[in-house]
Amino acid sequence: VAGYGFVSFLTDYGVDDGFVAACHGVLLSRASSVRVIDITHTVPPGNVRRGAAVLAQTLTWLPPAVHVAVVDPGVGTERRAIAVATPTAVLVGPDNGLLSWAWPALGGAQAAMLLNASTSLVRQVSHTFHGRDIFTPAAAALAIGADLRDLGQPLDITSLVRLPEPRSSVQPGVIEAEVVTIDRYGNVQLAATASQLQAAGFGVGMDVVVQTASTEYGARTGHTFASVERGRLVVLEDSAGHLAVASNRDSAARILHVSDGDVIIVRSRRQRTDG
Amino acid sequence: VAGYGFVSFLTDYGVDDGFVAACHGVLLSRASSVRVIDITHTVPPGNVRRGAAVLAQTLTWLPPAVHVAVVDPGVGTERRAIAVATPTAVLVGPDNGLLSWAWPALGGAQAAMLLNASTSLVRQVSHTFHGRDIFTPAAAALAIGADLRDLGQPLDITSLVRLPEPRSSVQPGVIEAEVVTIDRYGNVQLAATASQLQAAGFGVGMDVVVQTASTEYGARTGHTFASVERGRLVVLEDSAGHLAVASNRDSAARILHVSDGDVIIVRSRRQRTDG
Amino acid sequence: VAGYGFVSFLTDYGVDDGFVAACHGVLLSRASSVRVIDITHTVPPGNVRRGAAVLAQTLTWLPPAVHVAVVDPGVGTERRAIAVATPTAVLVGPDNGLLSWAWPALGGAQAAMLLNASTSLVRQVSHTFHGRDIFTPAAAALAIGADLRDLGQPLDITSLVRLPEPRSSVQPGVIEAEVVTIDRYGNVQLAATASQLQAAGFGVGMDVVVQTASTEYGARTGHTFASVERGRLVVLEDSAGHLAVASNRDSAARILHVSDGDVIIVRSRRQRTDG
Repeated sequence: VAGYGFVSFLTDYGVDDGFVAACHGVLLSRASSVRVIDITHTVPPGNVRRGAAVLAQTLTWLPPAVHVAVVDPGVGTERRAIAVATPTAVLVGPDNGLLSWAWPALGGAQAAMLLNASTSLVRQVSHTFHGRDIFTPAAAALAIGADLRDLGQPLDITSLVRLPEPRSSVQPGVIEAEVVTIDRYGNVQLAATASQLQAAGFGVGMDVVVQTASTEYGARTGHTFASVERGRLVVLEDSAGHLAVASNRDSAARILHVSDGDVIIVRSRRQRTDG
Repeated sequence: VAGYGFVSFLTDYGVDDGFVAACHGVLLSRASSVRVIDITHTVPPGNVRRGAAVLAQTLTWLPPAVHVAVVDPGVGTERRAIAVATPTAVLVGPDNGLLSWAWPALGGAQAAMLLNASTSLVRQVSHTFHGRDIFTPAAAALAIGADLRDLGQPLDITSLVRLPEPRSSVQPGVIEAEVVTIDRYGNVQLAATASQLQAAGFGVGMDVVVQTASTEYGARTGHTFASVERGRLVVLEDSAGHLAVASNRDSAARILHVSDGDVIIVRSRRQRTDG
Repeated sequence: VAGYGFVSFLTDYGVDDGFVAACHGVLLSRASSVRVIDITHTVPPGNVRRGAAVLAQTLTWLPPAVHVAVVDPGVGTERRAIAVATPTAVLVGPDNGLLSWAWPALGGAQAAMLLNASTSLVRQVSHTFHGRDIFTPAAAALAIGADLRDLGQPLDITSLVRLPEPRSSVQPGVIEAEVVTIDRYGNVQLAATASQLQAAGFGVGMDVVVQTASTEYGARTGHTFASVERGRLVVLEDSAGHLAVASNRDSAARILHVSDGDVIIVRSRRQRTDG
């Protein structure tokens, strides 16, 4: 049958106000049997890049769904409201790059629509809360079986706003990569993948150097946090398949003083002694 | 059929302890098919006014439901436990004003009950956790079809505790209004409505002055955050139909140094030059 | 019928990343009709004792369920992944003591399994995210009716890791007890129970002394927060049946400067004058 049993929801609305619940209410008023999977609502206000990273890395673990994401500092301006179809899901949100790491992760964009059909709207569309007034109504319509084509006008997929891919490069003994994002534990996720660790010639259990813009730190490659002593740095493959710098029972981000988008170099200790 | 498919839930219980889950558990143990819509659980401890504001502004977007709200510094004292029926919902909580902005928003109070029927109680009622022991059991009973009259004794609606309405006044070129509440983004919601902006003779795109107890700030009227440059103040209609002072990608509350209940004056810049 | 309609979930994953949602996704992809009750996800990172306390005190209020708990600083090491059956529920998580206060609260452990059956696993098990890759897949299997014995090898119940019980002792006029945990309001829960208050000869409405390692404070025994004046200390029975030190509209933990595991003495004021 048409439609979706699940709607996922990611925003920067926070959890202290009633914004998330108002969206749940709009959704459930129109699609009463749908079930909502909240991803997070504490993306830092307006931080599109952080929202994009969490979204793309989480969606692959969800059942087929309509995925609504709203980090939207340009709400009420000319930025477009879009829906993007992938093989098993539909992404709904602002056309500001927020969704652009997610559709490749879900198998690629098959079609895109500019949301504007009057059927998707609530009483009167506000200028500041399109999550409630445009995006969740569209998701509700899709959940109960509406055809994507009934929600707006087709868009050229190549016209969609995309965030730049985080950079990484690998040479023998040296990996240079941007920080994609940092999690609750202070694990520093890099743009490099675990396979790049092998490509650089690193094995597991090797002493390495982690270098930031300002200083450098000793670390080891390992499988998990407890591969090193408490408070020491470990370079490992994280649960999303990325290379990450972590610390056993401590925050690597705090130790390294790094943030999203900073560049980190991981290199073999031998490399350094040779230099 | 009788009953409700949804129960909404707002408290100051926080999200770090198991209090919210214990209430969900009581509810689902007694009404296993009901679905819970959590509004927020991070109302500042004991802040009845903040709870009342979030509740009243959110409930209008929810499907028909039993709405349970608990911000209850007087738990275990003589304050009454009540249920208030409106045309499409029942409100359940302490009689301390928390619900008093919500029932007008939902079409008015049609009946009120003092909760005391033994059917609504768990094993033994604690002195400190009536959310678990009185309010959610009552909500569960209502959800599965209990008649409101079976839950206690009728109360005179006029006897219910009410919070004072936030004040606002409007003259040509001058709006004076109390801060109702402040959201995650630092948007400062005023007691005045958008229609009062017109009544005061303000158009959209006008330069205005925002005056607090201590100082004054330049601002513009606009439709959305991005109507002004980054970091500048904008006076707009928010998503609840209130007038609000906001800032493009910044926190107006932080800029203005205001809190709930403070008084703000918005006046035309011309007015000021005339003064 | 076999299986469980509910899965509860407690972790230290936080709410800012997509970790909790990824676990929900794994669960709902495999057991689409199960409903999740989130207990809390903001256990301080790696704080097994705090997780154990919240878990044990909350589970008794939940319907029959599979209870998944993950506070797991040793993830990816030799620590075991276990499932523990009780009369009405199954507990799933790491064998590090996290579950050990819960099974007695749920009627005792009837059987325990080492989780390792390949049926419970996702694509490839990561070294750092067993909540997603081992524990929620096992919970999904149990929810849809799998037999506990199909998930791994039987374990001797006596081999399971247990946290030490928080200590308390009572003499006439003196209760000495460890702080079990502190809630959002700053209420300080002690290992002693309310019945120990009677055993020590304290009545309600008595002046008492609360003594910490560094200093002592006047307090009163009472039924609820409002039994004392605003800002004063009250010793009461909390909603879990424990003795707690609280303050009317203030944080007792802040006043007393205590944390989990600290020892507090409550004694009668007369006792002190005699000394």
